[in-house]
Amino acid sequence: MNDKRYEHGMEKLMEYTVKDRENASTHLKIADDLQDIAPDVAKYIIEFAYGNIYTRDGLSNKQRALVTISSLVTQGTEPQLELHLNTGLTAGLTQKEIVEAITQLIPYTGFPRVLNALKVAKKVFSIRAGEETA
Amino acid sequence: MNDKRYEHGMEKLMEYTVKDRENASTHLKIADDLQDIAPDVAKYIIEFAYGNIYTRDGLSNKQRALVTISSLVTQGTEPQLELHLNTGLTAGLTQKEIVEAITQLIPYTGFPRVLNALKVAKKVFSIRAGEETA
Amino acid sequence: MNDKRYEHGMEKLMEYTVKDRENASTHLKIADDLQDIAPDVAKYIIEFAYGNIYTRDGLSNKQRALVTISSLVTQGTEPQLELHLNTGLTAGLTQKEIVEAITQLIPYTGFPRVLNALKVAKKVFSIRAGEETA
Amino acid sequence: MNDKRYEHGMEKLMEYTVKDRENASTHLKIADDLQDIAPDVAKYIIEFAYGNIYTRDGLSNKQRALVTISSLVTQGTEPQLELHLNTGLTAGLTQKEIVEAITQLIPYTGFPRVLNALKVAKKVFSIRAGEETA
Amino acid sequence: MNDKRYEHGMEKLMEYTVKDRENASTHLKIADDLQDIAPDVAKYIIEFAYGNIYTRDGLSNKQRALVTISSLVTQGTEPQLELHLNTGLTAGLTQKEIVEAITQLIPYTGFPRVLNALKVAKKVFSIRAGEETA
Amino acid sequence: MNDKRYEHGMEKLMEYTVKDRENASTHLKIADDLQDIAPDVAKYIIEFAYGNIYTRDGLSNKQRALVTISSLVTQGTEPQLELHLNTGLTAGLTQKEIVEAITQLIPYTGFPRVLNALKVAKKVFSIRAGEETA
Repeated sequence: MNDKRYEHGMEKLMEYTVKDRENASTHLKIADDLQDIAPDVAKYIIEFAYGNIYTRDGLSNKQRALVTISSLVTQGTEPQLELHLNTGLTAGLTQKEIVEAITQLIPYTGFPRVLNALKVAKKVFSIRAGEETA
Repeated sequence: MNDKRYEHGMEKLMEYTVKDRENASTHLKIADDLQDIAPDVAKYIIEFAYGNIYTRDGLSNKQRALVTISSLVTQGTEPQLELHLNTGLTAGLTQKEIVEAITQLIPYTGFPRVLNALKVAKKVFSIRAGEETA
Repeated sequence: MNDKRYEHGMEKLMEYTVKDRENASTHLKIADDLQDIAPDVAKYIIEFAYGNIYTRDGLSNKQRALVTISSLVTQGTEPQLELHLNTGLTAGLTQKEIVEAITQLIPYTGFPRVLNALKVAKKVFSIRAGEETA
Repeated sequence: MNDKRYEHGMEKLMEYTVKDRENASTHLKIADDLQDIAPDVAKYIIEFAYGNIYTRDGLSNKQRALVTISSLVTQGTEPQLELHLNTGLTAGLTQKEIVEAITQLIPYTGFPRVLNALKVAKKVFSIRAGEETA
Repeated sequence: MNDKRYEHGMEKLMEYTVKDRENASTHLKIADDLQDIAPDVAKYIIEFAYGNIYTRDGLSNKQRALVTISSLVTQGTEPQLELHLNTGLTAGLTQKEIVEAITQLIPYTGFPRVLNALKVAKKVFSIRAGEETA
Repeated sequence: MNDKRYEHGMEKLMEYTVKDRENASTHLKIADDLQDIAPDVAKYIIEFAYGNIYTRDGLSNKQRALVTISSLVTQGTEPQLELHLNTGLTAGLTQKEIVEAITQLIPYTGFPRVLNALKVAKKVFSIRAGEETA
């Protein structure tokens, strides 16, 4: 089979996780957790989400991370928000940009989603700070 | 009273609507519609959303528009999406960036929200094309 | 069969719709619309929602309407919001209380749901004003 | 390129729409509407949704339609619900099964989503009745 | 009082929980937890959800479980999803059917809800495997 | 600067938390948690939510709490629900009124959101009972 999507998806995923041990291992852990119950879902994340969507032109990695984070804050799906705050930082978003993006959502989602997102951000920033000083 | 938030909010709002007759008139129409039922809500949009939040440092107008649009696509609140696709274009987002941002949301919201958002985008792009050639 | 819930539900529903032709006819229209596709759903609305829930002690009709309206604004289900703004007014909520309740939700749902709800409220208030002067 | 997903996706889509002119033309209309704004999204629907997901083993077409409809009722995304009530009927769901599935959701989504879905179902059933007698 | 709904509801509930100690005890635990704060809510679950809705004709127990699970995955209400994955298995859904139903939702809810649901499914399958080998 | 909103917001917040050590300390803890990541968000809660919105006329503190709780139950944002069940009790809502408000939402949100909310209510009531007997 000549479908290169899986390969391109893995390359793109690496751009979001390289130099980022915590995050790379989280992605591997997700794939691992899915292995015995739904291995194809892990494959679709690489092939479709990273291989088809993230590899498109027209937005930078940073912009795609900003879009993704804004959606996850709005949905309140916190495990995925934690993961994508990490991929966003690796893609080049600063902590300040992330806090500003979450703050920007107050008028559109109200305070509850924003407060829950800031709590996740605080945890992510603190883990990465610990890694950097380690 | 010395609170300059309303004034600063109006200035910021102008950055998102100037050179954009359709959009400016939509904002005025919202304020107008609220005038006899809830005038303070129109005031809070200017003072709080534009005066407090949009005027903050740390993200560009384009980035704030991207965050806002991503949240509105996720929520499926179409009248506000229509308005903020317009403010986003005025703030400097290209049509291609907007379509890419909506496409980026497929893995996070599924196709239904994305298809509904693209329909709104198509309408907005077409109205603005009509204005430009007028 | 001795189940009085349907009867009690109808009595309770009358408290929310009597003296309110627009609203009573809306309820009848809902039942009518359901008649050929899902008549039992209309029955469950009377028996369960009105017969079991609305007839409970511990909250006034006005308070139950306030709770219901707040949930419908949050969900963005506008046809039902329109109906329950009418039942709320008949139960004794003033237009001012309804506008205040919707405004109170800005910090909890953000502006989009609130603006959409105010538009529905404006329509309901205007129809009832037309009826009163008719 | 040897990726057969698009082809398999189209074949699977035909199973949900053949003998169903209204529905097939709706799918074509969606692809058509997307053509000038986001043609790749139409491609992903065929390749990923129909080519990757719907072609999987383990559930019948009828069961996949039931799952899809239940999610769309819960989300309240009505244009997609209308489409998938049609694909569900073509896949073999009866009108009675569809009404029962929507009714089954009352305890899980409450009445508002259910009433809005029944209204869409009524419209779909009526259009198809008109076609059959035409 | 001659209302048999509570009795019929309990019988129907037994069909979803018999031969399933974990699940039956979960249902009893829910009723127990509600006993001192809102005992009527436990009664409504039996009378209305099981007595009125689940006992209806037109869908099999397995189909009703599939509809319920699809809605709970979409909502992201995980404690209830855990419960209804159990009732679904007792009603005759296989683990493969459940995983397929969740996978079918990727195009309609996106990956986050699906990944969270698969995690709950993995937990439920593992607890039941433990019981069977116990 | 002459903006009194922060001051008025703090006064209003006190009405919802005075005589309520648990709750006051929760509010302080939120402000504290935000201090190093997003101190302005804590300021907006006081200035905008409490200073602008809660201080408005037209609804009593009890009514505002009822509206807020109904929205949070509907959204399923449990940390904020826990906080506002406490502010609601301090504002004068009885435990019975709170349980009734949650029960009233069954027909509008379905059982899952209601069961999750009752679990939070049970926890809040039990903590406050412990404090009173302490």
